[in-house]
Amino acid sequence: MSARSQISTEEFNQLMREELPFARVFSITAIQLDCDAAILCAPQHEDSLRPGGTISGPVMMGLADAALYAVILANIGKVELAVTTNLSINFLRKPAPGDLFCRATILKLGKRLAVCEARIYSDASDGETVVAHVTGTYSIPPGSVG
Amino acid sequence: MSARSQISTEEFNQLMREELPFARVFSITAIQLDCDAAILCAPQHEDSLRPGGTISGPVMMGLADAALYAVILANIGKVELAVTTNLSINFLRKPAPGDLFCRATILKLGKRLAVCEARIYSDASDGETVVAHVTGTYSIPPGSVG
Amino acid sequence: MSARSQISTEEFNQLMREELPFARVFSITAIQLDCDAAILCAPQHEDSLRPGGTISGPVMMGLADAALYAVILANIGKVELAVTTNLSINFLRKPAPGDLFCRATILKLGKRLAVCEARIYSDASDGETVVAHVTGTYSIPPGSVG
Amino acid sequence: MSARSQISTEEFNQLMREELPFARVFSITAIQLDCDAAILCAPQHEDSLRPGGTISGPVMMGLADAALYAVILANIGKVELAVTTNLSINFLRKPAPGDLFCRATILKLGKRLAVCEARIYSDASDGETVVAHVTGTYSIPPGSVG
Repeated sequence: MSARSQISTEEFNQLMREELPFARVFSITAIQLDCDAAILCAPQHEDSLRPGGTISGPVMMGLADAALYAVILANIGKVELAVTTNLSINFLRKPAPGDLFCRATILKLGKRLAVCEARIYSDASDGETVVAHVTGTYSIPPGSVG
Repeated sequence: MSARSQISTEEFNQLMREELPFARVFSITAIQLDCDAAILCAPQHEDSLRPGGTISGPVMMGLADAALYAVILANIGKVELAVTTNLSINFLRKPAPGDLFCRATILKLGKRLAVCEARIYSDASDGETVVAHVTGTYSIPPGSVG
Repeated sequence: MSARSQISTEEFNQLMREELPFARVFSITAIQLDCDAAILCAPQHEDSLRPGGTISGPVMMGLADAALYAVILANIGKVELAVTTNLSINFLRKPAPGDLFCRATILKLGKRLAVCEARIYSDASDGETVVAHVTGTYSIPPGSVG
Repeated sequence: MSARSQISTEEFNQLMREELPFARVFSITAIQLDCDAAILCAPQHEDSLRPGGTISGPVMMGLADAALYAVILANIGKVELAVTTNLSINFLRKPAPGDLFCRATILKLGKRLAVCEARIYSDASDGETVVAHVTGTYSIPPGSVG
């Protein structure tokens, strides 16, 4: 059983609306949040579609960044000074237009750095097919991890 | 002297407006384009500001992605099937609110892959201080590079 | 059930001895190989120990590179022209001296690129604790993937 | 003029012999070291050659890791607890057999993290052609940067 999140899904969505303008523009929403994993959705949006029928890369990067942030806050609580220091994304397959989902997990939660991983899925895929893989590192303020 | 770009700055800006919705939303614009380097600007935008006075990470990622694409098209012409396969960004310093500039160059232009580098500057910085460093790989359609 | 590997564990170990001098120096050995995953071991070696009791980073990078190569060859057969184009490693925890194990899997096997992931474990860890996480991209010769 | 290195080239080479077994095995040597850049050499070595006449990737990774470490110590002095947290390498061209050189510079020296960049050249290249590009992040012990 996963440890209880330090922040509720509603609190995290409220925080995104207030502090992550990018997430607000693209209506990115947390749909599940616990210490093991965060699952966020970027619903289909006219400003994320590219001609030829695929989804803009920066929207996937923004979705992943928000998902990594979510799983970290689930573990350390609402620490606003956690900042992304590195994000690396491999685009694996072109997602068809539709909702995107991102599932982020923690590889290591240290006292100063958190290293996380995320996979992006498209609802047009079969639920198994990853369209992008992301790793990210966040710098954590001293004293945030017990 | 740099070889002449295969695509003019105006043509690239037109292409961004038509094909890169993310660039359109954030008014990202190419201001200089030749085979050695592409320089793009993401002007200050209310949807890119974060509370506390800094600029959203995904906007920097989107700016870099467009700049890397620009310098590749400068070298191979308007090949619409060039796609990002990897993008890795190191966030170095929080940029103050203001315009962001990104300068992208090519590390290797192969027959199948182009590997590029980009640096993001803030106009609030002194013109020397890099706020983010990016490397990116693009897959190029067969036959695009002579 | 995993599809049958295109190359046996013995064939891959023979290939490493002949073609990967780094693997030979550090006695890196494949211990399990199928299309889903490759598991390789870097046994404790005096030239991989660092003072203070940990294992040299480049040995972990070399182990991961060999493991990623193994899982690709399991899928496409003995194609000698598959070359690493990118390898990114996050060092998560200092492994204690001892044998290291690396498990590599494929995120995407395309016609031109294979993107893979690997996790490194130490035998001193509890079998769950990852000491390093790796993503890698390989360029695949045309015609290798059916 | 570059600020004076906090560690001499001789001291760094001595430290590599004592603490970096990988560098010792491959005779990696610092040839120039100041706060702006470190230049290290990996001389041609029978255990780094691959059949077909190129140089093993892990040797390039180890050379880059040592060069990044060198330029950090040039700036902060002999702080043994600086550890690599991330290293990402793009292999651009196959180097011909011969000596390899790596030039590492600092992108950001923060109080907790240093982000660096390195380029690897082959002496068989024309002195302009980069065979690999590397970015790396190091965690720095508190109090090391003034």
